[in-house]
Amino acid sequence: MAAALVNGRSTDRVSIADRGLAYGDGLFETVAVRAGRPCLWREHLERLELGAKRLGIPCPPRELLREEGERLIAGTLQCVLKILLTRGPGGRGYRPQSDARPTRILSCSEAPEHPLAWRRRGVAVTFCATPLGENPSLAGVKHLNRLEQVLARSEWSDPDIAEGIMCDVRRRVVGGTMSNLFLLARGCLTTPRLDYCGIAGTMRRRVLESAAAAGLETREAFVTRRDLAAADGLFLTNALIGIWPVRRLGSTELDVGRLPMELMDRWCEAAFTPDDWRVA
Amino acid sequence: MAAALVNGRSTDRVSIADRGLAYGDGLFETVAVRAGRPCLWREHLERLELGAKRLGIPCPPRELLREEGERLIAGTLQCVLKILLTRGPGGRGYRPQSDARPTRILSCSEAPEHPLAWRRRGVAVTFCATPLGENPSLAGVKHLNRLEQVLARSEWSDPDIAEGIMCDVRRRVVGGTMSNLFLLARGCLTTPRLDYCGIAGTMRRRVLESAAAAGLETREAFVTRRDLAAADGLFLTNALIGIWPVRRLGSTELDVGRLPMELMDRWCEAAFTPDDWRVA
Repeated sequence: MAAALVNGRSTDRVSIADRGLAYGDGLFETVAVRAGRPCLWREHLERLELGAKRLGIPCPPRELLREEGERLIAGTLQCVLKILLTRGPGGRGYRPQSDARPTRILSCSEAPEHPLAWRRRGVAVTFCATPLGENPSLAGVKHLNRLEQVLARSEWSDPDIAEGIMCDVRRRVVGGTMSNLFLLARGCLTTPRLDYCGIAGTMRRRVLESAAAAGLETREAFVTRRDLAAADGLFLTNALIGIWPVRRLGSTELDVGRLPMELMDRWCEAAFTPDDWRVA
Repeated sequence: MAAALVNGRSTDRVSIADRGLAYGDGLFETVAVRAGRPCLWREHLERLELGAKRLGIPCPPRELLREEGERLIAGTLQCVLKILLTRGPGGRGYRPQSDARPTRILSCSEAPEHPLAWRRRGVAVTFCATPLGENPSLAGVKHLNRLEQVLARSEWSDPDIAEGIMCDVRRRVVGGTMSNLFLLARGCLTTPRLDYCGIAGTMRRRVLESAAAAGLETREAFVTRRDLAAADGLFLTNALIGIWPVRRLGSTELDVGRLPMELMDRWCEAAFTPDDWRVA
């Protein structure tokens, strides 16, 4: 297995002139690979394409990403496939070069190991002090400007705390440092709106669709810490963890049993059923 | 002349696992080099050290940066020295690795050429629609998360427009995409506060000090577009351009003659007088 492909070549190095490094001028996707095939593949590709469109970066064709993904993964059953797309090298200062030759980097790493109990019995979660700045131009996009998450994630080191909740500068709840957040209250499943900041997770999208298909009322709304305190239950989602129920929020114990655990298991199972590389 | 040094080695490549690329987890400085020596060297080093402290990245000793700077510049009289410092490779997800081995990249490029008339007769400036998100944790720091500037800079392509003014999400004026902004009004020199966003420019700092030393009243304040319209004059600063008077703001012509051009020339000259590498 090659460790990485940069524009199709087996290497793990990029130019120091790449705008991904200089300005965080790019995007990334982190794809769970099971049985040698990608999970939520269509969702990842669609988000990458949407992000590329919003940043004005030419997106590589799906066939190319599929071909390189297959080549990189070959023989590996379970791993994480990271796709990183930048505007490429060059340009004078911030101004994007008119003839951008994007850099695409596919790399493969071991799947992170989290205690199984986190999925089954839930996780402890803290509140982060680092706020998320608002910017509608970038909201929802999984771009490479992630210093806010880095600072937030460095706020705690207790290994028993699985995630930190981030709020925007207006103190609205946005999500976890690396996950999206859902609240169950009065039978309705709510997740924070992402108009001003946050990342539109692939698993978030899948859960919204699956919940609606299961007849649950769903909505995207502005959420406050008071809403979290009043909720019947909370859970976190991302493409690698699937779903983590929240059993402790700050110093408050939550009753995981009030969440629709069976449904959530089914959503997870569906999300982790590998797609065909050609599904999208 | 070597084109670049990465951790002291002559190369122009970095690992794709570097957090500078993955998350924009780092800082940079862009130093004007004249007569083979750096300008505003002390200011650049101090800002780099302050930024490193705020991000929790170990900063290389000044002697090392001096030694590598001298080695890289050797024989070159005029160029731009870029120093890029990242938290280095690795770590699991956003969480900074506890044993960070920072990456320092020194690279050399040609000084940008701007029309001499821009310095003498002033520049035309536009307003950008892309807002700056607010985040006190990152405000002032010259970090690698610069997508907002990239998007703002791609809003115009008219080569006669030298710079774009950016406002924060509350519509307060912050500065140019690559420069700081000063307003002269009723004899007082004002520059936008940088509590919530923006970069604390080395030339901004120098102008504030020089103006105060010349007996001018100076202040850092929140600034609105109305303040710009009411000002007697405006100018832009950065370490490479020095000072550009503004002769047109959007569709409004400004009288550059109301600015203290002689003083500004002196400030520029002082800023572009090369320091000794050992000054700091």
